[in-house]
Amino acid sequence: MFITFEGQEGAGKSTQIKLLHDYFLAQGVNVILTREPGGTVIAEKIRRMLKDTENTSISKKTEALLYIAARAQLADEVILPHLANGGVVLSDRFSDSTIAYQGFGNGLDIDDLVSMSNFAGDSLVPNITFYLQIDVQEGLARKLTQGAPDRIEQRELSYHLKVQKGYEHLLRMYPDRIKAIDGAQPQDKIHEIIIKYIKDITA
Amino acid sequence: MFITFEGQEGAGKSTQIKLLHDYFLAQGVNVILTREPGGTVIAEKIRRMLKDTENTSISKKTEALLYIAARAQLADEVILPHLANGGVVLSDRFSDSTIAYQGFGNGLDIDDLVSMSNFAGDSLVPNITFYLQIDVQEGLARKLTQGAPDRIEQRELSYHLKVQKGYEHLLRMYPDRIKAIDGAQPQDKIHEIIIKYIKDITA
Repeated sequence: MFITFEGQEGAGKSTQIKLLHDYFLAQGVNVILTREPGGTVIAEKIRRMLKDTENTSISKKTEALLYIAARAQLADEVILPHLANGGVVLSDRFSDSTIAYQGFGNGLDIDDLVSMSNFAGDSLVPNITFYLQIDVQEGLARKLTQGAPDRIEQRELSYHLKVQKGYEHLLRMYPDRIKAIDGAQPQDKIHEIIIKYIKDITA
Repeated sequence: MFITFEGQEGAGKSTQIKLLHDYFLAQGVNVILTREPGGTVIAEKIRRMLKDTENTSISKKTEALLYIAARAQLADEVILPHLANGGVVLSDRFSDSTIAYQGFGNGLDIDDLVSMSNFAGDSLVPNITFYLQIDVQEGLARKLTQGAPDRIEQRELSYHLKVQKGYEHLLRMYPDRIKAIDGAQPQDKIHEIIIKYIKDITA
């Protein structure tokens, strides 16, 4: 089973994915937790290029290709082998992020991004995706309390509002797969909702 | 005018592209010389990742995507603006290398590579491509005299023979654009042949 978490800056993805990871571990499930971009030596090198605020010259297309390159490496080294072994994979972001951030946010062609993402991930689609919704400005403010913003986070509000439109679009496109959850709720409440969905699909 | 040089390790591309660059400069042409992967700050960072012999874990798809990411950056920052200004661009490698090395050499799907390359380079096609042919083993031996082999160069002979098959395939596909030149000839003789082709297409 392949489970992804999506959402914008400060939505609480990291907290919730860790809680779900702990839940599976407590059940004795063979689970791994990973993140995009990153999760392997090579992909973490690509991540550093993407996040580094000094890399102001990265073009929109290069940015998309680097995210997708990191995805190819993570899929090949970690996600696909673990799924093939019958394990559960939790990923903090996957292809939906490319559509929301590089497609809607940066204005790149969605079809191009989908086909390149499919190339990178062997057309892998998550079994379920938790999309944590949050007020964009509130999320960015929350994120700022955690440290200096990275190259993506420091983009202006209008960019982040376009990303939100992208997520809302994906939600309408894939209502069966993507579960929207109000990220403003208490953490334990959100975790409860997630566990309920997990129990439903594994029942 | 966009002119590319293609060929395998030790074929003499760098020498010839410099001679052609000098030729254009002597004519007062607004010409730039660049190379792939590389040619911009970001793309040179990607180049280092690709060439570094320590990065043994890079997957075939990640490798292709990184080359294409470097291409997107070079096209966006250097090639397309210079062509738009009416200048001449000489590039040591371009999309044909992806087909030969990552397609034929590594066995990735050619159609996928072509469409991703088109995405990266805004479907830019060289006006003329000089393909320097050389005996593969001889070229690799020649290259070894110039220093330690990089991550691609150090691949086994069978890989380089598949790359050669890729180039021969491209030559059959695009006989009008790609000009094959015997790289075993003296340097000044090769330069003469190249100048003749240049005069033909600018006449």
